[in-house]
Amino acid sequence: MIQLSRTQIEALVTVDSEMAEAVRDAYRAISDGRANLPPVGHLGFPAAHGDCHIKFGHIAGDEVFAVKIASGFYDNPAKGLPSSTGVVLVFSALTGQMQALLADEGYLTDLRTGLGGAVASLALCRPDARRFLIVGSGTQGYWLARSLRHLAPAADIAIWGRNPDRVAALVARLEGVTIAPDLETACRGADVIVTATPANAPLVRADWVRPGCHITAIGADSPGKQELETALVVRAQLRVADSLSQSLDHGEFAHARAAGLIGPGDCAELGAILSGRAAGRRSPDDITIADLTGVATQDIAMARSVLSRAKGTAQ
Amino acid sequence: MIQLSRTQIEALVTVDSEMAEAVRDAYRAISDGRANLPPVGHLGFPAAHGDCHIKFGHIAGDEVFAVKIASGFYDNPAKGLPSSTGVVLVFSALTGQMQALLADEGYLTDLRTGLGGAVASLALCRPDARRFLIVGSGTQGYWLARSLRHLAPAADIAIWGRNPDRVAALVARLEGVTIAPDLETACRGADVIVTATPANAPLVRADWVRPGCHITAIGADSPGKQELETALVVRAQLRVADSLSQSLDHGEFAHARAAGLIGPGDCAELGAILSGRAAGRRSPDDITIADLTGVATQDIAMARSVLSRAKGTAQ
Repeated sequence: MIQLSRTQIEALVTVDSEMAEAVRDAYRAISDGRANLPPVGHLGFPAAHGDCHIKFGHIAGDEVFAVKIASGFYDNPAKGLPSSTGVVLVFSALTGQMQALLADEGYLTDLRTGLGGAVASLALCRPDARRFLIVGSGTQGYWLARSLRHLAPAADIAIWGRNPDRVAALVARLEGVTIAPDLETACRGADVIVTATPANAPLVRADWVRPGCHITAIGADSPGKQELETALVVRAQLRVADSLSQSLDHGEFAHARAAGLIGPGDCAELGAILSGRAAGRRSPDDITIADLTGVATQDIAMARSVLSRAKGTAQ
Repeated sequence: MIQLSRTQIEALVTVDSEMAEAVRDAYRAISDGRANLPPVGHLGFPAAHGDCHIKFGHIAGDEVFAVKIASGFYDNPAKGLPSSTGVVLVFSALTGQMQALLADEGYLTDLRTGLGGAVASLALCRPDARRFLIVGSGTQGYWLARSLRHLAPAADIAIWGRNPDRVAALVARLEGVTIAPDLETACRGADVIVTATPANAPLVRADWVRPGCHITAIGADSPGKQELETALVVRAQLRVADSLSQSLDHGEFAHARAAGLIGPGDCAELGAILSGRAAGRRSPDDITIADLTGVATQDIAMARSVLSRAKGTAQ
């Protein structure tokens, strides 16, 4: 059995074009019907302000399947522990034998989420998009900036966050990324906005967004979370989700759906657009929105890449 | 992180009175409302004749929770591998950190299932029950016999199986256990019958069972499996399940329910009987049946015991 620590995994996989392609294929697998993704398991620990999600699945033809056990315990920082952690287990899809324990402590989730945000944004924005705004200065802000820098080297990337000290510290860790002055001005000037916050109320207003803008919303992944004004979701000409069922149930699109303003027929799936089976952006003036709630095929793709690189074989 | 192999786990926990009590408490936890048991996850691999079940849960007040990933790949024996395997992961319920990887290869499931069968049988049979019949000569036959021998030392235990060579080999591994001649005769003479087979059609007929007999059925744990004639389930004065919802959905009681012959109100839960909140056997002439489909609280109890003994602390 292969057993890898976070440090070992970081040395094997990071932001690169092969990993971005693995993430693209993970989205396609969902829309192509190649993915077997049972419902996500959930265990809550209200007394400890914690919860645990168990994501698992298999992509048809893969020799492995993966089970990711990820948790967030929000009192951990006071105990000197990170709030989020996780492990990914990899099993043979031919014999059921355990092949690897990836003690990545959430690294692979951060990496695939950042890559996924960049991949979705670049698939849907105008080809001439230049000004990219990242909203949020947490871990995801970092991985989004790294991923966008790699996949769109000419992009002009700015970061906005509520806490100026955190934004300054984050920008200092990144190359060629600037600090956005205020959110409204930054949104009004952006060709692409990527939101990655734990917001429970809309941050980005419908009238702050100019025609032709693309928005990728990453933060809303459970009931009650929301980053975009519902009117913005309704206003968009194209609404795209990594998983339509998740997005309409507990993602960014859930609010417009609950209000009866949109339905499944008003949305497309990212994988179908990436594989050319559904239309993406139709006009330079379209406002397009991608909502990413996170899907287990991305976790499978990450695990497969780690294993493949650990074994020193070609993917 | 604690990491233990099957051999190390076997040296820590086996059939003993403390483990039997842990299993009893696991049943009580379900009926007391202390257990948080989300639906079992399932991944099928039809091309490889395999499937994987993910059981997870938490018992209120426990400092740990467990995730069990168990699979059966039925082409494995031809590859020189066991068909069943599994791992149990233990996490802190206070911080989410992974505490242990128990690579038990299914040993803990075998142990808790054997102990569970013995515990349920002894809780529901007549106090003067003496003649015990185990139907099935697989792994479960072994652990049931070991558990019954330990918890009911005066019992007269016989084993019946389709394959006389396998039965002879199994009996040779056990002390004080005999071979039952034929199934009908053995059933007619038994005070307690425990079935542990992968049967898809009834083995034990309603008119083979005498008044006062207790039957524990362990084999039926998925749709289509059946060990007892439906008329026997209907005839019983007391029907008990480890998990009523599982038993009526895909356990031994599912057939009588599907035929409209019994409903949830005609059954009791084992944990409620063990904690004294529901009545067990009422008369020496009652036929009683326990259907055990397996519950994650048993897995949690096993994992907790392993960890506690590994740490050398009292449970």
